[in-house]
Amino acid sequence: MFDPIHLADSVNIDQAWKSLAQVARGQLTDGQCGSLELDIQAAFAADSERQSRYSREAAGLQLDFSRHAVNPALWSALLDLASAAEIKTAAAAMFSGEAINHTEGRQVLHAALRAGLDSRLSDAKFPQKQQIQQVCKRLAVLVEQVRSGARCGYSGCAFTDVVNIGIGGSDLGPAMVTQALTPYHSKLTLHFVSNVDPSHLVNTLKKLNPQTTLFVIASKTFTTLETLTNATSSRQWLQQHAGVDVDLSEHFVAVSSNVEKAEAFGIERDSIYPMWDWVGGRYSLWSAIGLPIALAVGWKNFKALCNGAASMDRHFIEAPLDQNLPVILSLLEVLSVNVLGAQSHAVLPYDQNLAQLPAFLQQLTMESNGKRVDRKGELLARASCPIVWGAAGTNGQHSFHQLLHQGTHCIPADFLVPLQSHNPLDDQHVHLVTNCMAQAKALLFGKSEAEAKRELLQAGCSEQQADLLAPHKVLPGNRPSLTLSFEKTTPETLGALIALYEHKVFASSVIWQVNAFDQWGVELGKQIGVSIYQEIQHRRSNKKSASVFDPSTEALLQQLMTLESNKKDERKPALSN
Amino acid sequence: MFDPIHLADSVNIDQAWKSLAQVARGQLTDGQCGSLELDIQAAFAADSERQSRYSREAAGLQLDFSRHAVNPALWSALLDLASAAEIKTAAAAMFSGEAINHTEGRQVLHAALRAGLDSRLSDAKFPQKQQIQQVCKRLAVLVEQVRSGARCGYSGCAFTDVVNIGIGGSDLGPAMVTQALTPYHSKLTLHFVSNVDPSHLVNTLKKLNPQTTLFVIASKTFTTLETLTNATSSRQWLQQHAGVDVDLSEHFVAVSSNVEKAEAFGIERDSIYPMWDWVGGRYSLWSAIGLPIALAVGWKNFKALCNGAASMDRHFIEAPLDQNLPVILSLLEVLSVNVLGAQSHAVLPYDQNLAQLPAFLQQLTMESNGKRVDRKGELLARASCPIVWGAAGTNGQHSFHQLLHQGTHCIPADFLVPLQSHNPLDDQHVHLVTNCMAQAKALLFGKSEAEAKRELLQAGCSEQQADLLAPHKVLPGNRPSLTLSFEKTTPETLGALIALYEHKVFASSVIWQVNAFDQWGVELGKQIGVSIYQEIQHRRSNKKSASVFDPSTEALLQQLMTLESNKKDERKPALSN
Repeated sequence: MFDPIHLADSVNIDQAWKSLAQVARGQLTDGQCGSLELDIQAAFAADSERQSRYSREAAGLQLDFSRHAVNPALWSALLDLASAAEIKTAAAAMFSGEAINHTEGRQVLHAALRAGLDSRLSDAKFPQKQQIQQVCKRLAVLVEQVRSGARCGYSGCAFTDVVNIGIGGSDLGPAMVTQALTPYHSKLTLHFVSNVDPSHLVNTLKKLNPQTTLFVIASKTFTTLETLTNATSSRQWLQQHAGVDVDLSEHFVAVSSNVEKAEAFGIERDSIYPMWDWVGGRYSLWSAIGLPIALAVGWKNFKALCNGAASMDRHFIEAPLDQNLPVILSLLEVLSVNVLGAQSHAVLPYDQNLAQLPAFLQQLTMESNGKRVDRKGELLARASCPIVWGAAGTNGQHSFHQLLHQGTHCIPADFLVPLQSHNPLDDQHVHLVTNCMAQAKALLFGKSEAEAKRELLQAGCSEQQADLLAPHKVLPGNRPSLTLSFEKTTPETLGALIALYEHKVFASSVIWQVNAFDQWGVELGKQIGVSIYQEIQHRRSNKKSASVFDPSTEALLQQLMTLESNKKDERKPALSN
Repeated sequence: MFDPIHLADSVNIDQAWKSLAQVARGQLTDGQCGSLELDIQAAFAADSERQSRYSREAAGLQLDFSRHAVNPALWSALLDLASAAEIKTAAAAMFSGEAINHTEGRQVLHAALRAGLDSRLSDAKFPQKQQIQQVCKRLAVLVEQVRSGARCGYSGCAFTDVVNIGIGGSDLGPAMVTQALTPYHSKLTLHFVSNVDPSHLVNTLKKLNPQTTLFVIASKTFTTLETLTNATSSRQWLQQHAGVDVDLSEHFVAVSSNVEKAEAFGIERDSIYPMWDWVGGRYSLWSAIGLPIALAVGWKNFKALCNGAASMDRHFIEAPLDQNLPVILSLLEVLSVNVLGAQSHAVLPYDQNLAQLPAFLQQLTMESNGKRVDRKGELLARASCPIVWGAAGTNGQHSFHQLLHQGTHCIPADFLVPLQSHNPLDDQHVHLVTNCMAQAKALLFGKSEAEAKRELLQAGCSEQQADLLAPHKVLPGNRPSLTLSFEKTTPETLGALIALYEHKVFASSVIWQVNAFDQWGVELGKQIGVSIYQEIQHRRSNKKSASVFDPSTEALLQQLMTLESNKKDERKPALSN
């Protein structure tokens, strides 16, 4: 039986951390501004097998981490840490349905959503299997009905546009995947509205025809402030165009575990699709939350996405630590944060359709492992999750790569690149791939002052000019990165890629001994937001204060109230095209 | 005369750094995982004037930095550093046209673009004034012609869509501002294509009508790989629809300093608008690079944007250090990086239309100050520029805010919030503002374990459950942030906001003693990219290698070549709707 609090043997894991630190002291040298670094260039020169030694393959993904800050001694110490942390035991506990989200008393079964009938992942302890199959059938029917025009709007026209209203996990995953699979889209156009800022909804709806717009309202509790206010405003918009007596039920679908609240909003029971306690929001694109994806690319492609993820699930369970892609990515993260002192991690997809991947991984990673206490509730002695950020290449090259190459902070980078394009336009995609290769090469091998000076002299500079300029053109190199390459961004490959990062995050949570599946840190802000809003309503009616906030909040609140009383006429429920 | 290399007196600035470190040792306490922190809560309790003491106003922007990690001793030491760094002298040098970009021998005159006839900013040493006025006149005419339909496409129809093709500074600024000013848009729809990835262009063009699409090709040298390949593919797309013999000259405008290359591409001389050496790419939205903005919002609003920036320019020159918004933001950045040890900086605009601001500031900040040597070329002894990242609120609250509240890294945050909305839809915007206030309050005041436990007991938990859960619900607080609030996101306010960050970046560069206006670190990647592409062409024709790359590059190259030879038929110049 899995013990949710005492995850790994503390003697073993403490020893593994100590060994890692000791090895690091022997292998690393001092860099600029207090950083530590490995001479990766020298490691390449010393080991002709290095590239193949640190390359792996699984589920259609090629991983090359030979450019990262590893060598045999460090890699061995990292594998010992993975072993001491008992990642495999923890993974088995997750897949077998133990309540590993112990602070909420919940199972963690997003992998089961994509397992199909695979018996390794679903057993007698898993009664949810039937529910999953039932909901999949209902979703497949809905997708077919909307895409074929069998389900249509109040005027009898087929839907042309779908607006997904959700936030966080009910937005980032579906939006990222929908964009990533653009080459698989049919005629339906998908839109995503998340922010409570009314501009988000207004800007979206002004381009749309109410007669042909379907809304998907995605909120586990059906009480999320942003989602409910946008859903209410959307219904008003439809009513303004259709008239208040018209039946708009065909225009709304809900994804929620709160059937009563969704029905009370006016959504038909058979248009409500469930969410479950055993699927976390940031892991939910495989559930009914993925409906917008399926509407965009069709049910067959949505299943292919799930199948790709299931391949990675099997790999994560079966492959030994040294061959296990999620474990390897996790160990490189731990190395970066806890040994090299990196506070952030760059994700650089060389694929414009993957432009939203960094934002998706930002939530997946930072909401999961942005924790300061371990599973027992004790303060962590070591840093945990880094900041995840990035942008699609080549765009970043003309923006922040300057700092990647010549800044003073250690920023490990993941380069992701499909070797073939869905849009092979002359050699543009080959330029994309060569740029990706070139950036990783430049980060690692850099340019010395002697090289820089030689180039300057060759270009006609005087000795004095060359001496002045050369230091500015030096790239120190030895900056760690890894490359994930794949043949093409297909549903299967994308599914595997997402599952890879999901399990990487889980593996890191096991090493850091935190619970990756709760998010208690976000509660307080919501509570305070409600109390400030209540106070605003109070002051609007009573003209005096019921509560006094801290001076900084109070100052802004008073600015807001003053502006509001000067411009009362501007607050209105106005939404029309 | 300004000396570009010996910027500040080294004795003074060294002394100021030492004093700051000494004050910090006395004022800060140890946080978790080796971090340092100020007890900001206690500072509020001890000083009833704290909020007003650390609040300032300029050019329509209200700055409250009372929630940041300052107190009188630290603030005084920081101001001494600003003074020792001679920020005011450096600013005067920039505004008076000295070649402060000394590694490229260039003046830095983006502020002059928005100065109008303000004599404080333009004098006899500034012959460019006439050029600016001339180009402004030409741009204003073009904007009027396109918006009125006087300039139209090959079939005689008015333009409905404009595609800006540019990357980096020729993309991020115009794209960010165009989205930010959505409420000011007329009928023209703007699109931005930057990536060399063919999917970017293909996805954009498939929604457009060739007869009514205008292209703006923005590249200083007119040789930028991404921009030129996309421009060429765009012309092919037009030709496929219009026929090769049709005159397409009305469909193209160039912004470039290379008139010959732009003409050779086929753009008429009077449709070419200049870029100048004395305006850096990431500072160029005020120049002809801002054309897409002016097309979207009209010339009057574009001028209002410039006027807002000019107000901030005047403030930066005139206000004393202690009142100077750019200097204050810079000092808080230096405090965060060099005293608190932060490697990143979060930008959180509570305005969906400002969603691209973090990406814009990422380039502005990281490309400017992501440097490892000082102006003399000597290695920096201290860390420089942090990673800038963020997202529009409230979206981030449902994503990475978990880590902001409960992670182990110090991440100072800028909250930006307009108090009024252009789309006042019921109370949605008030919810947006209250959420912004609540997040800053939660970061600062947090929640203690005793409070968490009391809430759990009140909610019906047993003593044992409450003890288990309470540590997970603790927010330690004292996490530094600042708030920039303004009445509404207008062209004027946005201009002031951008100029504020531009000058903040400059002030930090002066303190760190780096050149903020070059970007030598991006050259090597481009060189290597060209050499890999040449090698691919060589192998395609000769079937054997001319160059051998490092093993990691070689492995990926071979994968690419193998796939290509297996799928030769897929590489084709195909672009049609």
